[in-house]
Amino acid sequence: MKVAVLTKIREIRIQERDIPRIGDNECLVRIRSVGVCGSDVHYYLHGRIGSQVATPPHILGHESAGEVVQIGSAVTNIKKGDRVAVEPGIPCRNCESCKSGHYNLCKEIRFLGTPPIPGAYVEYLAVPSDFVFPIADRMSFDDAAMIEPLAVAVHSVNLGKVQPGDSIAVFGAGSIGLLTMQTAIACGATRAFITDPLDYRLEFAKKYGATAALNPEKTDVVEAILDLTSGRGVDVAFEAAGAEDTPNQGLKIAKRGGRFVWIGIQAVDRVAIEPEPLRRRAVTIKGVRRFKHTYPAAIELVRSGKVDVRSIVTHRFPIEEIEKAFRLVENYEDGVIKAVIHI
Amino acid sequence: MKVAVLTKIREIRIQERDIPRIGDNECLVRIRSVGVCGSDVHYYLHGRIGSQVATPPHILGHESAGEVVQIGSAVTNIKKGDRVAVEPGIPCRNCESCKSGHYNLCKEIRFLGTPPIPGAYVEYLAVPSDFVFPIADRMSFDDAAMIEPLAVAVHSVNLGKVQPGDSIAVFGAGSIGLLTMQTAIACGATRAFITDPLDYRLEFAKKYGATAALNPEKTDVVEAILDLTSGRGVDVAFEAAGAEDTPNQGLKIAKRGGRFVWIGIQAVDRVAIEPEPLRRRAVTIKGVRRFKHTYPAAIELVRSGKVDVRSIVTHRFPIEEIEKAFRLVENYEDGVIKAVIHI
Amino acid sequence: MKVAVLTKIREIRIQERDIPRIGDNECLVRIRSVGVCGSDVHYYLHGRIGSQVATPPHILGHESAGEVVQIGSAVTNIKKGDRVAVEPGIPCRNCESCKSGHYNLCKEIRFLGTPPIPGAYVEYLAVPSDFVFPIADRMSFDDAAMIEPLAVAVHSVNLGKVQPGDSIAVFGAGSIGLLTMQTAIACGATRAFITDPLDYRLEFAKKYGATAALNPEKTDVVEAILDLTSGRGVDVAFEAAGAEDTPNQGLKIAKRGGRFVWIGIQAVDRVAIEPEPLRRRAVTIKGVRRFKHTYPAAIELVRSGKVDVRSIVTHRFPIEEIEKAFRLVENYEDGVIKAVIHI
Amino acid sequence: MKVAVLTKIREIRIQERDIPRIGDNECLVRIRSVGVCGSDVHYYLHGRIGSQVATPPHILGHESAGEVVQIGSAVTNIKKGDRVAVEPGIPCRNCESCKSGHYNLCKEIRFLGTPPIPGAYVEYLAVPSDFVFPIADRMSFDDAAMIEPLAVAVHSVNLGKVQPGDSIAVFGAGSIGLLTMQTAIACGATRAFITDPLDYRLEFAKKYGATAALNPEKTDVVEAILDLTSGRGVDVAFEAAGAEDTPNQGLKIAKRGGRFVWIGIQAVDRVAIEPEPLRRRAVTIKGVRRFKHTYPAAIELVRSGKVDVRSIVTHRFPIEEIEKAFRLVENYEDGVIKAVIHI
Repeated sequence: MKVAVLTKIREIRIQERDIPRIGDNECLVRIRSVGVCGSDVHYYLHGRIGSQVATPPHILGHESAGEVVQIGSAVTNIKKGDRVAVEPGIPCRNCESCKSGHYNLCKEIRFLGTPPIPGAYVEYLAVPSDFVFPIADRMSFDDAAMIEPLAVAVHSVNLGKVQPGDSIAVFGAGSIGLLTMQTAIACGATRAFITDPLDYRLEFAKKYGATAALNPEKTDVVEAILDLTSGRGVDVAFEAAGAEDTPNQGLKIAKRGGRFVWIGIQAVDRVAIEPEPLRRRAVTIKGVRRFKHTYPAAIELVRSGKVDVRSIVTHRFPIEEIEKAFRLVENYEDGVIKAVIHI
Repeated sequence: MKVAVLTKIREIRIQERDIPRIGDNECLVRIRSVGVCGSDVHYYLHGRIGSQVATPPHILGHESAGEVVQIGSAVTNIKKGDRVAVEPGIPCRNCESCKSGHYNLCKEIRFLGTPPIPGAYVEYLAVPSDFVFPIADRMSFDDAAMIEPLAVAVHSVNLGKVQPGDSIAVFGAGSIGLLTMQTAIACGATRAFITDPLDYRLEFAKKYGATAALNPEKTDVVEAILDLTSGRGVDVAFEAAGAEDTPNQGLKIAKRGGRFVWIGIQAVDRVAIEPEPLRRRAVTIKGVRRFKHTYPAAIELVRSGKVDVRSIVTHRFPIEEIEKAFRLVENYEDGVIKAVIHI
Repeated sequence: MKVAVLTKIREIRIQERDIPRIGDNECLVRIRSVGVCGSDVHYYLHGRIGSQVATPPHILGHESAGEVVQIGSAVTNIKKGDRVAVEPGIPCRNCESCKSGHYNLCKEIRFLGTPPIPGAYVEYLAVPSDFVFPIADRMSFDDAAMIEPLAVAVHSVNLGKVQPGDSIAVFGAGSIGLLTMQTAIACGATRAFITDPLDYRLEFAKKYGATAALNPEKTDVVEAILDLTSGRGVDVAFEAAGAEDTPNQGLKIAKRGGRFVWIGIQAVDRVAIEPEPLRRRAVTIKGVRRFKHTYPAAIELVRSGKVDVRSIVTHRFPIEEIEKAFRLVENYEDGVIKAVIHI
Repeated sequence: MKVAVLTKIREIRIQERDIPRIGDNECLVRIRSVGVCGSDVHYYLHGRIGSQVATPPHILGHESAGEVVQIGSAVTNIKKGDRVAVEPGIPCRNCESCKSGHYNLCKEIRFLGTPPIPGAYVEYLAVPSDFVFPIADRMSFDDAAMIEPLAVAVHSVNLGKVQPGDSIAVFGAGSIGLLTMQTAIACGATRAFITDPLDYRLEFAKKYGATAALNPEKTDVVEAILDLTSGRGVDVAFEAAGAEDTPNQGLKIAKRGGRFVWIGIQAVDRVAIEPEPLRRRAVTIKGVRRFKHTYPAAIELVRSGKVDVRSIVTHRFPIEEIEKAFRLVENYEDGVIKAVIHI
């Protein structure tokens, strides 16, 4: 089968590998669409994310969808021909985190594309049958690949405990930020503020229902959001920018007793936060680690039309042009929100 | 001012009373629209609900909205001319329940129309300024009167902890049931089942997005909902029928670890429930007592268009015809969901 | 190896079986002590509990402890010689319940002694290594066998969300009731009321710190507990009696907004509950299904001396006298709280 | 009456003032004991805490207890002669925070001793009757004054959601740290680690049940706590030191999915935290703002003997020697944990 291999920094080559054999509880999925995540691009450019090093040759990719072409002898929940989204992290199922329902925190989790586990830019993938999820007929494989970032959004909104009538703010209008905003609105948020330094992303945000879409290079976003909420602040703030100043912005615009959900990955080792608003406003900060059991909900949100993942996918490339896709994402070119690779 | 007084069982008379004087922290509201609640009709027919006796002369009504015509000297959050929804229960603000955020459970709460507190079928009402809530421009007084039943729905959905992608079931498609279903959908529920023995109500439910609207006189609703959920059951079940058999239906169709929110008021002293599904499925039952601080959320849901209260109001009567309204509601005539009284 | 087999109703015979072989992830445990649970006795007397039928020959027992004598090739968390408590329910690890942290609700769970799964009245048991838990040096095998009922108590107290300074009530002073009360006190409850028709059990309760131990055949326990709490009721009520009248007692003595944790198994199909206090007091009812991941906490509570399981064990029998033990428990003879079988 | 007035920085003078008149819902309390809080000393030394300026003349003090000598005409819950602890923050009772049960976050709260509200170093104080709490007979006025810091501890433990069998860590062994540790143990924590650079405070910690009491100037406390927990970390970490390095220590020793409760007040405007452990371990940070409705629980914990406040009070001074007390606390002299002023 064809696979896309990171052979060295800034170099991906298409190579041939054996099709994997499946175990009794696994499915073989013919991968059709894989989203390009910022973390993929980061590994491509730097060979590492923090302490995690992608020693070449390494296969990236974790936002994948395809068709089940074979099932193991013990599989009953999935059948050949099912069109599925693939949940990329397989936990140990035995540790304290797994048993208490936080399998996203399993130390032994094998997550597609996170070194040393090979990823999803491949033609075929063997996956435990409880980590593939059939999609609705009306959903495309590209839609299904977007279930992975949407799963992050759903988990974040769950952590933020968004309630009907809440106001929310999202820092960062990339794919995670836009999906988080959409999910929060689908969960009853009635006022949604979003910030991003790229105006074209703010346009997407408006289309998805933003009450106000603010460019921090043009506006004091803290002041603006406090103004727009009569000084009260928002019920829940989401950090999806990975910037250094957004955490303090979030702490200042979260309401008294509000929640700040920290999704983004800051490039720096330390972020200076102001303890005063944290303490005086009694804010809760929630660190987000991927997702846990949110694929079914994410698929439901797409199936029911509550969240639009389709228009999030702005670009499509065949696997042979994967580096072109990576460079597009790297440089925020051509109005990109999300590029997907067709395999 | 004009008031509608329950002078004896099955008799309401329009009488004159003095316009109330307001305290420093109160507003005087010129009431314009008051919804007819099933409990109003129950007092009208029986003179009591359980242990609560409405000794004539008594004024009913608690779903009210109007215009602020005067404010007390200490009022700053409301101004003359504001169009407002009136939250009907004024708690003591000092007891354990009040201080811990459960003012709906205050033993000293003074709730409009609940004996011996006079209610809202009056031209003018004095209300503490923090219990009147300005409505959006696009909202009518009838819409605003519906904030009260919607507040029950919002509180119930909050208790049910509806999450994105959840499936829900509602027993009873009266105004509370329909608003609960709408609110749950607005909070991310993607599959909603509803039951009612009145087919015209099921038609409303379909219009509001029911996945399936089932008549228990024609269908085994437990079997049907289990079938529709592949045997899993729903994440949250809401009892809004006040019937005797619906609690056991709810316990059986709640998923393992699911929630059953008990809103309806059964006419009987005891309801026989089956402990086996409660225990084996580890269901949580939540008893609902009115609402607490959900007016702002309810107004937001209407303002944002997420919940349609307008079409819930099927009939309108001038105060002089209040008994006509009560009899309409009593007999489920003319496709009534909610009647309102214009004053 | 020796095993105790239910050969027909009211007959247990000691038989020989092969020692089980262990898988790569399993441990072989030489069982030393097994507690006699009321459910064991119920199967012995009636051959069934509700819909679950124990077709002879069947091996009962699920409260077990022993010594690890062999470990599978992949086991790293346990070593030969470890003295362990055995968690008796092995879930599928793959379903929605398992993944979301509620493995106690797994439909495929294999629970020792629950038909058709053979139980723990055996010399050797093969157990997945993540379901055996090393005990503290100071703990005996009898103490360790008590971790199972204590795990129920800990799970119940967790569901009841006992907070520091809470008052609690427990209906039923059998082993589960006594351990629940002890655990609640260890979690910060400062006032604990308990009821039981057997006075000798109330004596145990007093020793374990009961504020008041009430006999419902001599006292109106609802009135007494309301009196003792100045009419407020308790923060959390636990039903551990399995009686028909205790649920309504619990609903009446739970405070407004309080919690009622339903542990006991009623012998009847339907229990008539009063919806009025449930609704007006906005009580939450929690159905309890065994436990989930509470073995480590239970062991910690015993190790630290916060919970006394030792004196709960009132009687000890060799496996050859298992029927004697069962009859003792059946008839509440000789001041029995808990009998254990030594193997 | 006699009052202690901060007349300028580092100067307190005893002056005469009129005894306050009480309103209908108030009690007049003859203050007997007032604890010296670190914040009192900070105002004494610097005239301000952050943005809050104590313009002289100002009366400090908020940890107070005394005897009720007069009650207002509407007071029913308290009677003359009651010995009481005084909760120092009176909220507006009307705002969103108050109504939703977070009155500690009320913007209009009037908190004793926090400028411009005069404090409790006075002979008589007028207090709304629902903010005075009768104490147990066995409790002294000094014990009762300690209910205020204990209320902070109880609120913090509630926010930390300590469960039976949890391990916890506390940074800082001052009075708040010691009471937090004691409360956590009283709530079921079975392993408690505490750190402080002052060895005499660590001795107190050991007496109150610390599993390990660590001096960060002698030990790498992160490494030590991870060692002591086999690398897992603790369920809940509490920051009660107000130091700059403790937040990162807390994030590193909180278990995956653990909680970090931030009680201490850092003297700096910004604290550099590491986002990596926050995100990868999915830690929840809870900012603590005083307390809400925890006086009854705090009193119960003392009454029942679960928390020892008596030995926390190491020094006692008559009001005339208040500056001596302040300087003792300022300089951590003579093994001081808590000094109280007798009036």
